Order: sequence, then structure tokens, then C-alpha cells
Amino acid sequence: MWLMFQFPLCPFSRKIRLLLGEKGVGYELVRESPWQRRDEFIDMNPAGQTPVMADDSRNLVLIDSQAICEYFEETEEKSPMISGTAQNRAEIRRLTTWFDQQFYGDVVAPLMNEKMRKRLVDRTSPDAKMLREAMKNAVSHLDYTDYLLDHRNWLAGATLSLADLTAAAHISVADYLGGIDWRGHDLTSRWYAGLKSRPSFRPLLGERMEVIVPPAHYDKVDFL
Amino acid sequence: MWLMFQFPLCPFSRKIRLLLGEKGVGYELVRESPWQRRDEFIDMNPAGQTPVMADDSRNLVLIDSQAICEYFEETEEKSPMISGTAQNRAEIRRLTTWFDQQFYGDVVAPLMNEKMRKRLVDRTSPDAKMLREAMKNAVSHLDYTDYLLDHRNWLAGATLSLADLTAAAHISVADYLGGIDWRGHDLTSRWYAGLKSRPSFRPLLGERMEVIVPPAHYDKVDFL
Ligand SMILES: N[C@@H](CCC(=O)N[C@@H](CS)C(=O)NCC(=O)O)C(=O)O
Ligand SMILES: N[C@@H](CCC(=O)N[C@@H](CS)C(=O)NCC(=O)O)C(=O)O
Repeated sequence: MWLMFQFPLCPFSRKIRLLLGEKGVGYELVRESPWQRRDEFIDMNPAGQTPVMADDSRNLVLIDSQAICEYFEETEEKSPMISGTAQNRAEIRRLTTWFDQQFYGDVVAPLMNEKMRKRLVDRTSPDAKMLREAMKNAVSHLDYTDYLLDHRNWLAGATLSLADLTAAAHISVADYLGGIDWRGHDLTSRWYAGLKSRPSFRPLLGERMEVIVPPAHYDKVDFL
Repeated sequence: MWLMFQFPLCPFSRKIRLLLGEKGVGYELVRESPWQRRDEFIDMNPAGQTPVMADDSRNLVLIDSQAICEYFEETEEKSPMISGTAQNRAEIRRLTTWFDQQFYGDVVAPLMNEKMRKRLVDRTSPDAKMLREAMKNAVSHLDYTDYLLDHRNWLAGATLSLADLTAAAHISVADYLGGIDWRGHDLTSRWYAGLKSRPSFRPLLGERMEVIVPPAHYDKVDFL
């Protein structure tokens, strides 16, 4: 049985969970708070980051969300999410990295820091200026997804791919933390509503991170 | 003909150049300084980052070093660098990401900022405290590569892989900028000397970034 070390608002874990949900691969969740830097966790992943996937029965430990997604893409044929020509696959990987690095760095990481880490770890209040900045960044990122969805059915092309799952993972964490202003982003809203209604997404939307309450629209499919 | 948009000290470009060198794929270099945020470059890559690979004759633009490496791994059979079992491949990708994110963030990015960007763009002096911090980080990273090479022939296992090329790319930029203290890291030194002597590495070691002079040992294979 696969174990996934994660916490409810880790976007990189959500990315893998959406992929495994689409592929129908089972796993068990193990709660890990990387900011506690637990010794046994650092021994397993020297980078000290979630997600980590482990299969004890086969002595297997997988680290880094992209390495993990590529692993399951290679070993589970059902619902390929990095598919098409080499050029299509390069575009899927480009956009996946875009969300894992640009969107995460500009939007999700500052929101998590202000609204989650400061509250749970430092017990201080969020910095309003940092929050405004992250929300402004989110707007310009959603302008870009609107632009892509004006030209394509899905973010990276004609079919649902890891780029959509990764984008939805990051956007869902930002939305939980109240960082997304959906007004004026009709194409992205419609695309996101479609993803939210997928069976792979439902369990994620039902989970809560202690003390932090999401906005009312967060888990609704008809959210506008 | 492939064009690669890059500058001599971009570690992510070096990673691809080592891969293409091993595979024998030809390309032409186009000098791009991402900090100038040239409009035509941003139009090509909205992330505004080097490297970008373009093949005008086929209207192909590839973005993000990992997406680019995966593309050439899929399209060029010679000298596979992400090979072996799915588990081996996951380990190669984990370590590739380790160098692209942890080593880059802890060591290469601060060195480039202090010793290159401040000099070329801001025309200010490097901050000695930041430099010391980056060099201290480099030591603990090389402790980790020493540990890996004590258990394996190459960083990710029995064969040369993209993990070695990526590590060498980042280390070479840090070394150019005077950030690596090789003393006490015998296993990593020997591994790096072996990589430096490969034909894929020689052209990189011959290039210079204007006004910034590397230490005397930088391009020597017998450097200790
Ligand atoms: N490249 C990693 C990034 C994972 C990551 O940044 N995880 C965050 C939690 S969402 C973390 O563990 N941060 C703690 C730290 O970096 O020390 C991946 O894709 O899995
Ligand atoms: N994920 C990218 C990262 C590339 C990157 O960070 N490039 C640096 C130069 S070494 C850059 O263009 N920085 C300018 C910027 O981020 O604005 C890749 O692997 O290609």
C-alpha cells in the first residue's frame, strides 16, 4: 500500500492526489507538517518537504511531486496525463512547472506563509501588504489561464493533462486561503468548475486544515 | 537548426548543453540576458527565463530546462540519461530537482546575484555575509554528494545520468563564481574531475562571462 506524507493544504500533494484519483491508484494519507522538521521525516527526505510517497512492502520511497507524477505516468497506463507528441508533452511539462514554480512562488507560498504558517507556527497576524500583493499576482496569472483557455480546450492543448491538475491543485489552495478573486475570469472559472466536479477532486474539497476556514464558495461547483 | 537562448553562466542552460553534448545534438547559441526583460523574449517565454530552445524551421519553442531535457530524452535515443527502471528514473528526477531547486536556491542564485547581477546590473559590491552563507551552504551540499558517491558510482546510481549533468552544471557555475571550497570533498572532486574531462563539458569550461574572471583551477581537470 502506498503511503502519502502530506498536509491538507500542500499543493504539491494535491497535484499527485488528483493524478492518482484520475488513474484510480489507492493510497493512505499520513499527516506530515514539514515545518516541524521531524527527524524521521528528514531521514526519509533530506529536502524536508512534502509530498513523499512510500511503499514499505517494496522498500520504495519517492520524492518530489514531478518525479512522483512521472513515476505513476510510467507505471499506470490508465488515464495518461502526459500524453501526445513530444511537443505536446513538452508543453504539458512547461505549464506544470509554471504552476509549481511561478504560480506557487507568486501566489500560493506567500498566502500559505501569511495565512497558515504565521497563524499555526508563529502565532502572528498576516501582513496585509503581502496578502494584497499575492492576490494581485493571482489576478495576472488568471489572466494568463484565461488567455490559454481562449485558444485551447484545456490548458496545455486538446485534452485534460497534468498541467490542468497541477493548476487546479495550486488554485484550490489559493482559493481556500481566500486569495482568488474570480470576477472577470469567466473562462478560468468555467474550467475550474468542471475540474471541481470530477470524482478525483471531491475528496480534496471536503478536507479542512485546522483553525483555517475557507470561503463559502470554496467547495461549491456552482461558485459564481 | 536549434537555437538556444542563454548566457554563459546560466546553470539551467548548461544542464541542457551537457545533455545535448552527450547525445551529439547540434545547436546554435543566442545570447540572452533575462534581466533585460527584452519584449521579444517575453513574448516567446512569458516566464522571462533562460533557457529557451527554438527551432524556427518547425515552429517549435521549448521552455523550462526539465521539459527540454525530457523532450530530447524522448526524441534522441543516443546516450539515454533518464534510464533504468521506473524507480531508477524517479531517483534521477529527484536528484535533478534537488540541484535545480535546493542547490540553485541555496548556493547558485545568491552567488549569481552577489557576484554577477550586482556587478553587471546594479553596479554595486557583493554583500560579504550573503557570500559566506552561500559558500557554507555549498559545503553542506557537497557533504551530501560525497555521501551519495560513497554508496554509488554516479549520483543517482550505477550509471551516468541527468542527475550528474545537472549537478555538474550548477556546481560549475558556483565554482566559476569562486563559491566552492573543494578541500575535504575528495569523492565529489574526483567525480567532478571525471565530468570535466568529457567532451560535452570542454566547450562550457572555455567560455567566459564578461568582466567576471573565474579562479585559476576552474577549467583545469587536475584541479586539486
Ligand atoms: N519540488 C517539491 C516542492 C515541495 C514543497 O515545496 N513542499 C512544501 C509544502 S507545500 C514544503 O514541504 N515546504 C517546507 C520546506 O521547504 O522546508 C515538489 O514538487 O514536491
Ligand atoms: N525552471 C526554469 C528556471 C530557469 C531560471 O531560473 N533561469 C534564470 C537564469 S539562470 C532566469 O532566467 N532568471 C531570470 C528571472 O527569473 O526573471 C528552468 O529549469 O529552465
